[in-house]
Amino acid sequence: MSGGFSPLLFVHGFWHGSWCWSEVMMHTATAGRPSVAVDMAGHGLRSRLPEHPLRGDAVAAEPSRVADVNLDQAGELLVSQIKEVGRGGPVTVVAHSMGGTVLTRAAQLAPDLVAHAVYLAAFMPASDIPAAAYIAMPENEGELVVPSLRADPAVIGALRLDVTSEDPVYHQQLRDAFLGDVDPAVADAAIRLMTPDAPAGIAGGATTLTSDGWGSVPRTYVICTQDMAIRPPTQRRFIADADAAFPENPTSVVTLDSSHSPFLSMPRQVADIVLTLG
Amino acid sequence: MSGGFSPLLFVHGFWHGSWCWSEVMMHTATAGRPSVAVDMAGHGLRSRLPEHPLRGDAVAAEPSRVADVNLDQAGELLVSQIKEVGRGGPVTVVAHSMGGTVLTRAAQLAPDLVAHAVYLAAFMPASDIPAAAYIAMPENEGELVVPSLRADPAVIGALRLDVTSEDPVYHQQLRDAFLGDVDPAVADAAIRLMTPDAPAGIAGGATTLTSDGWGSVPRTYVICTQDMAIRPPTQRRFIADADAAFPENPTSVVTLDSSHSPFLSMPRQVADIVLTLG
Repeated sequence: MSGGFSPLLFVHGFWHGSWCWSEVMMHTATAGRPSVAVDMAGHGLRSRLPEHPLRGDAVAAEPSRVADVNLDQAGELLVSQIKEVGRGGPVTVVAHSMGGTVLTRAAQLAPDLVAHAVYLAAFMPASDIPAAAYIAMPENEGELVVPSLRADPAVIGALRLDVTSEDPVYHQQLRDAFLGDVDPAVADAAIRLMTPDAPAGIAGGATTLTSDGWGSVPRTYVICTQDMAIRPPTQRRFIADADAAFPENPTSVVTLDSSHSPFLSMPRQVADIVLTLG
Repeated sequence: MSGGFSPLLFVHGFWHGSWCWSEVMMHTATAGRPSVAVDMAGHGLRSRLPEHPLRGDAVAAEPSRVADVNLDQAGELLVSQIKEVGRGGPVTVVAHSMGGTVLTRAAQLAPDLVAHAVYLAAFMPASDIPAAAYIAMPENEGELVVPSLRADPAVIGALRLDVTSEDPVYHQQLRDAFLGDVDPAVADAAIRLMTPDAPAGIAGGATTLTSDGWGSVPRTYVICTQDMAIRPPTQRRFIADADAAFPENPTSVVTLDSSHSPFLSMPRQVADIVLTLG
């Protein structure tokens, strides 16, 4: 980049919202870098609660009101957010978890607008493979998210977590899945801020990747070695598959000894990684 | 300011969190301004839910777990956040609602670190007057927040809203109190992101203001004319009292024809106001 660094745009993962980046953004603001955290389609200020309260049998049966949200919409929204924050110039986009799937779509649609794509314990699916396919791969053994789903995504149209559950065992499982190394009080507050329904259509969507599209965008993958949501072998598979498909543009790899939520357990390290890039 | 503008720090009001500023920050990032939205003491990632679920009689009786949070702590936290983001240099701080009470304390403690204090439909209490005192003043007639409280703050130590209420009349009252001009789907998502308990100790705390402290800091007040939480006559009283106490440093006044939540109903206008300041 001539004349300075590109703005930073942070995209959260399923069930989260812009709120999860506040500690990281404290450091990027301190460094003088213009930054914004957005809400993914169907999340945060764009979330929609089910019509009826999720209690008892309703948890498994109540239709989701984000069932109509898909990867096309999520990708187009992210492209529009990138265009806005960058005023048409390139933006460094940092994506967590399922935010990576949306970043991949956006970068394929508008490669010239993504100065650098940073995948933080994120889905970085290969061409034409939906993120959902990776969840059940052998590399992902031991993950704790699928066992935490409380409804069939094919029935309700969403991946549903019972984030207001009063069952201490289940609540602990959510902590273990997402927030193992985070201060317990902060972890509880984070779970309280999550929304229950994440659109199945985002996880089920796929993107055809090309050399002059996503394959041309500089990318960094931040592996989180204690991740119980996207297991480290899955993260390494994303990198290996990407590098096999686009060997002329290999992935830069950084490792953090963190859970799935380094933005809460080691926000300074996350910021330091991001601040050195495009 | 020599050499450019100060960083921006956004502080939300009671029950809210950093998430409420994402649309405004899209515009400040677009303008190239380093910005961060923080969580107030007892809020967002610093919130603590009551130990037992808030249902039935528990709503009025269950003790709050933020009852120990007071204005001293909240002010010190904000000063530390200002110091961090400004690296010891001055920061423009934008506060909404009860965030204004915390900003007033922080600016009194560290006037040299606040380039500009912006009160957005915010409490801007006079010397030694707690914010709580303004809530019941005649100027505040018609406000809809006190009627929405679901427990006695003196009993539970917090101002409690039943943000997960399934009563449509009550839910509509929350919308009317805070979000009257906001898209209904966004308003519902915002209410879902609110935390139920706001520390009574912040509203009950007061700050002694001095000419070389808070009185020396440039300030702007943004009046929201459709505000049903802090009524416009109350907002004008804050300004009149401040200007009477510190006539050599009068308040700059801007008016928005908005509800209590212009960060959601007119984020660009909020950003435009803030971006013109120190």
